Amino acid sequence: MKNKELIRIGNNTSPVFVSEIPDKHFKRLWQLHVGSHTNTTVVVLADKQVYDLHQSWIESFTSRLNITVANTQLLVAGEKIKQLAVAETIINEWIALSIPKNAIILCIGGGTITDLGGFIASVYKRGLRLINIPTSLMAMTDASIGGKNALNLGTYKNQIGTFHAPLFTFVAPEFLKTLPETEMASGYAEMMKHGLLEGKNFLKKMLNIVPNAAAPSTSLLVDSIRIKIQIVDSDPTEKSKRMFLNLGHTFGHAYEGFFATSGQPITHGCAIAWGLTEILFASESICNLHSKKIKDVAAWLNQHYRFDTIPIWEQLKEYIVSDKKNISSSFRIVLLNELGRPFIQAIDENGLKSIHSLFCNKNGLRNLGINN
Amino acid sequence: MKNKELIRIGNNTSPVFVSEIPDKHFKRLWQLHVGSHTNTTVVVLADKQVYDLHQSWIESFTSRLNITVANTQLLVAGEKIKQLAVAETIINEWIALSIPKNAIILCIGGGTITDLGGFIASVYKRGLRLINIPTSLMAMTDASIGGKNALNLGTYKNQIGTFHAPLFTFVAPEFLKTLPETEMASGYAEMMKHGLLEGKNFLKKMLNIVPNAAAPSTSLLVDSIRIKIQIVDSDPTEKSKRMFLNLGHTFGHAYEGFFATSGQPITHGCAIAWGLTEILFASESICNLHSKKIKDVAAWLNQHYRFDTIPIWEQLKEYIVSDKKNISSSFRIVLLNELGRPFIQAIDENGLKSIHSLFCNKNGLRNLGINN
Repeated sequence: MKNKELIRIGNNTSPVFVSEIPDKHFKRLWQLHVGSHTNTTVVVLADKQVYDLHQSWIESFTSRLNITVANTQLLVAGEKIKQLAVAETIINEWIALSIPKNAIILCIGGGTITDLGGFIASVYKRGLRLINIPTSLMAMTDASIGGKNALNLGTYKNQIGTFHAPLFTFVAPEFLKTLPETEMASGYAEMMKHGLLEGKNFLKKMLNIVPNAAAPSTSLLVDSIRIKIQIVDSDPTEKSKRMFLNLGHTFGHAYEGFFATSGQPITHGCAIAWGLTEILFASESICNLHSKKIKDVAAWLNQHYRFDTIPIWEQLKEYIVSDKKNISSSFRIVLLNELGRPFIQAIDENGLKSIHSLFCNKNGLRNLGINN
Repeated sequence: MKNKELIRIGNNTSPVFVSEIPDKHFKRLWQLHVGSHTNTTVVVLADKQVYDLHQSWIESFTSRLNITVANTQLLVAGEKIKQLAVAETIINEWIALSIPKNAIILCIGGGTITDLGGFIASVYKRGLRLINIPTSLMAMTDASIGGKNALNLGTYKNQIGTFHAPLFTFVAPEFLKTLPETEMASGYAEMMKHGLLEGKNFLKKMLNIVPNAAAPSTSLLVDSIRIKIQIVDSDPTEKSKRMFLNLGHTFGHAYEGFFATSGQPITHGCAIAWGLTEILFASESICNLHSKKIKDVAAWLNQHYRFDTIPIWEQLKEYIVSDKKNISSSFRIVLLNELGRPFIQAIDENGLKSIHSLFCNKNGLRNLGINN
């Protein structure tokens, strides 16, 4: 496999391949990871919009594999599909079709598709093989990698889930050409999280990015995936270091839940961008992370992911208390000692309230140019 | 730990302890496997009938541990609780109670309780720790051991599930004193399956058992658990040898599904007993397993697990086609070359039909004393 055209990231367990020429590479990777000596039953779970846009390509490559596509589920993507009832409907349909336990689920779409598909793959007849083809920037750099999947319960995000690693994840930047601008911006926020966890060159490059409709360079995409994979491979089931990937997510998920309930849903990336800013303030206050160091990042986040209103603590609280990362009566959040030096901090409810007060404090916000 | 009073079976990953003096041993095992340095949140999932009968003992030992029992779910056990909707209701309640991800689920009951509890444990916030206290003979020798859990979809058995090993399984034969006779007999059928897989002394001992209200000796119980654990430890995720434990289950599950739908449900053990007999006939026909060798076992199964009616192939078929062990267009069943020498046989639908015809053939059945 030549340089540039196809880049492999991660170990053999669940590698990620970034391919500039998907037509050329997908069949070969399929043969390597699945084999082609027997006909394989495949079920497809895809974002309807993506499928419609790329149908001819998707069907051209599936037709060249030794597979039988036994069922294709086209879904309107979004948090609302991450529900047990949706999973149950699909599972029922597949049982009626006698989809066997050696079938493969091919997930083509963004994070909500790979989350739903990953969950179904992990529980259907005690586990089907899974291949992810992420089509959003968020899914390429985060959601489709590392084997975590999740469903929501009502408005509480990601309360149910498993670890179920894909055979491999196939990243084709080609798909980004049709990604809506808001979704592209959402993905860039998750990439900035990787930047804060890295704290070096990747962060510098990210600060020069304008999160708009333009896709990142393949090299930047690969760097972002590499940061995630390195953390995941060191701790696949999130006992320690993998928790760093939750940077900004305690408050981020709460914002996402709050705005979803209020009927004005925001993208995951927007919510995370705000959660990251909140953690930068907290790190400045609690860990003496120097304000000079965070200024550029906070300004970048504020410039590109501005919100109109900040919910008060009482509005956020219920979404945080049920967040799945909580341990007993204390909460565990990720703070930064330095850019690139995250650590886990146990904190109680009052501590979180103080962090949020700090964030809501207009004077504090104004100092960094954030108005609410 | 002294001999006899407390017997440990299996490796460190998910051991089984058989305790004659549960009061004495449970606290010690908890301290060893969970620790007692911090207060642990515990949620209990229990068979209501069992809980009512043994409440004082259960509450006496939980009160002596450094735990907070945050919620107790008492359920009327049975296949009908093995549904996603039941799991979702419980998970919702636990989220509302902010049950944290470091909590422990304590499952007290038979196989339907440990199946439901195991599934919830594996998906709630991506995995809670699980401790099983099986109270039926079936759960002690089979369902609570080895980490497999399952939910049904409608009348299709065990279509959803995961592998999620308990921290440990605590077998207290004490519970068998209150087990109804039909449930005891159901457990003995699963033990006979272990006998057929072993084919030596344990099988001989089993043939002398009358499956009635009397509990097996602790030594027989331990032998049965040991046979299962040895197979499970050699292949935890059922890629090869663990499939042997499905002996009799392809037809068995179909009988169970068929009779559940018909409104005359039969016990799991009864269904398995019939499935085992069917496989003995098939092994005689296909593998030349000598009829002399199976005669005693078939007579024992027929004597104790007689059915009134035999569904015809067309009635069973739909329950077999959707059975989770099927691979593509062929099925995989377990046959016996000899008693104690199981192997996996790929077979198509016509092959299964022939096996069932053989079984339904009145003359053939009469030869072994089975009338339908």
